[in-house]
Amino acid sequence: MLPFTALVTLLATIFYFYLGLRVGAARGKFGVKAPATTGHPDFERAFRVQMNTLEWMPIFLPALWLFAAYLSDIGAAIIGLVWILGRFLYLTGYSEAAEKRGRGFGIQALSCGILWIGALSGIILRLVHAA
Amino acid sequence: MLPFTALVTLLATIFYFYLGLRVGAARGKFGVKAPATTGHPDFERAFRVQMNTLEWMPIFLPALWLFAAYLSDIGAAIIGLVWILGRFLYLTGYSEAAEKRGRGFGIQALSCGILWIGALSGIILRLVHAA
Amino acid sequence: MLPFTALVTLLATIFYFYLGLRVGAARGKFGVKAPATTGHPDFERAFRVQMNTLEWMPIFLPALWLFAAYLSDIGAAIIGLVWILGRFLYLTGYSEAAEKRGRGFGIQALSCGILWIGALSGIILRLVHAA
Repeated sequence: MLPFTALVTLLATIFYFYLGLRVGAARGKFGVKAPATTGHPDFERAFRVQMNTLEWMPIFLPALWLFAAYLSDIGAAIIGLVWILGRFLYLTGYSEAAEKRGRGFGIQALSCGILWIGALSGIILRLVHAA
Repeated sequence: MLPFTALVTLLATIFYFYLGLRVGAARGKFGVKAPATTGHPDFERAFRVQMNTLEWMPIFLPALWLFAAYLSDIGAAIIGLVWILGRFLYLTGYSEAAEKRGRGFGIQALSCGILWIGALSGIILRLVHAA
Repeated sequence: MLPFTALVTLLATIFYFYLGLRVGAARGKFGVKAPATTGHPDFERAFRVQMNTLEWMPIFLPALWLFAAYLSDIGAAIIGLVWILGRFLYLTGYSEAAEKRGRGFGIQALSCGILWIGALSGIILRLVHAA
């Protein structure tokens, strides 16, 4: 049932939900009325933090679960926590200035890369053993 | 195999697909040519309905399936149907005016909250029983 | 464990990751600084290619995996490869001109439709046999 990966998935979704709350709050604070998504640089950075995290979800979640299913539940959960940390640093950096989003972005991208390569290795090992 | 949750997932994806069709139709009707995503308020509202539903997919789908796997297939399916109903009211409200999107949004957010809390409870119960 | 569908999922995510790299490169090439997502038509087309693929992920991935789980792992993997091919033609067409995105879009939409209908058939068959 991969319970540790399940817990980290719930943690990632609530963190991501919080990024959406920040966009809603920024709408009010900077007077950017729906449906507009531009109009104030501080709003636009909050919006891009949420959007970029959304853009990475179809990379992170499949790689996380395939790593968990084919290699290790605990291993996937630990790397998943590092991904959330990277996403948090991306948020704090980007909130200061667009130029400061690099470090957190790199950490989360590296985490996804490790999950992806681990998942691929696990699947190939399984296919080779079954053959 | 969680067949009821699987059915509701297919229903949610076809509803979401329909939101994309509406955006394509609004492009033609209001003369907003790709790749632009702004230019007419009615188009922008149709686009934001699709985008906001997309934004919630990485919250809804993981919470739905973890609820189903750790608690109840039928339970997840019923709450999933309420989520789709909330999304439908969000669509009809937002189509009239951005201010009228609140009720449907609240219903779908509440549904996700119940799925998330139920999934968390189910995972913790499982870990405690296994310990 | 559905290993062939797992492999195609990893292939789809790395292809999708590459679409994001192209957006980053287009930012530099056409001078569109984050957080902006408009400003040059070539950048906007690269951005929309990534965004539209993201928009279809919550249709493609659930339909792919439900088809695999309820009908056939190999079958899902083959149709998934056709989806990636359609997405590739969408990329090359859209990169030339927005008007040339139709063929690839149609192929990927048709692939999703087949996955969706197959998944639905498989689930219903399972429920009928269990009844």
